[in-house]
Amino acid sequence: MFFETRSRREFVNITRDVHAALQASGIQEGLALVNAMHITASVFINDDEPGLHSDFEVWLEGLAPEKPHSRYAHNGYEDNADAHLKRQVMGREVVVAVTEGKLDLGPWEQIFYGEFDGKRRKRVLVKIIGE
Amino acid sequence: MFFETRSRREFVNITRDVHAALQASGIQEGLALVNAMHITASVFINDDEPGLHSDFEVWLEGLAPEKPHSRYAHNGYEDNADAHLKRQVMGREVVVAVTEGKLDLGPWEQIFYGEFDGKRRKRVLVKIIGE
Amino acid sequence: MFFETRSRREFVNITRDVHAALQASGIQEGLALVNAMHITASVFINDDEPGLHSDFEVWLEGLAPEKPHSRYAHNGYEDNADAHLKRQVMGREVVVAVTEGKLDLGPWEQIFYGEFDGKRRKRVLVKIIGE
Repeated sequence: MFFETRSRREFVNITRDVHAALQASGIQEGLALVNAMHITASVFINDDEPGLHSDFEVWLEGLAPEKPHSRYAHNGYEDNADAHLKRQVMGREVVVAVTEGKLDLGPWEQIFYGEFDGKRRKRVLVKIIGE
Repeated sequence: MFFETRSRREFVNITRDVHAALQASGIQEGLALVNAMHITASVFINDDEPGLHSDFEVWLEGLAPEKPHSRYAHNGYEDNADAHLKRQVMGREVVVAVTEGKLDLGPWEQIFYGEFDGKRRKRVLVKIIGE
Repeated sequence: MFFETRSRREFVNITRDVHAALQASGIQEGLALVNAMHITASVFINDDEPGLHSDFEVWLEGLAPEKPHSRYAHNGYEDNADAHLKRQVMGREVVVAVTEGKLDLGPWEQIFYGEFDGKRRKRVLVKIIGE
């Protein structure tokens, strides 16, 4: 599953895409792993609410500020050390139960791709096992 | 698996409940996924030590303070934005190995439900796959 | 899988060890769970870049300082409360897809054992399921 983000930091709701991958697999009972393939990005589950997403942005900037880029040893050739840190807070992956052919999510659970160093082609892996 | 918490924030040891679910499944080798169904809660593994739990409470309040509620854009109709952030630090889920019919946990590993916006009926999902 | 760390805090690249465990299993399609057995340690995926690792060290000390030990209620008989907190930020485990007999990792993804209270014999669990 590939897609592109338009800004440096962005949250993309990928719940439908994961659901489509599950339906294509035909699996009825099992586990679905959904993970970022990039170490400056995250897959996480939370609320699809724009206010909360702006809270995440402000909060993560407080915990691991992007600038000045020189504050991080990693930023010799790069400028994305903050993205590596932010991704640790938000997590690399989620594992979701599959029950009766559906993602077994709580009422407000939505799956997001969190990009922290974007504007490039990015990839999410969905692996479903079971029967 | 349903239960209720009495305070807004609380850590509940659910290791026995997960073990009971494993025994009921009859599975000997596999993986057990344990996740919160709520986006203001967490399932995590750490030490069952009251001092540490009070350290978690103080630390998480420092990283993502509950008040003033107006500091978060999410808090229009709600007052729980801090709970959404705290849950990201603590994580949504754990995946535990199942070996010879038992949860393959380290000597001090205990599974907790971490509630950050409680006093309501809450649900934890346990999904076990294997044979 | 056992090993020892020489300093209190250390990041060890264990990607090869996990890959060896996968090959020994003979599994072609499935999931690999890799988790710390210790609650003051972490298994996580990020970049194998020394500058970034020193950024992690500085950043985690900022979020959850080790000293003074007396700042944490957990530190009655122990001095490692900060290690319990740091491990929550970095995570306990990773779940990696197994495709065609290989760890299905992104181009820069490397698996690390993050030790926050070391100088002792430590253990990582690798559990692979599939077929």
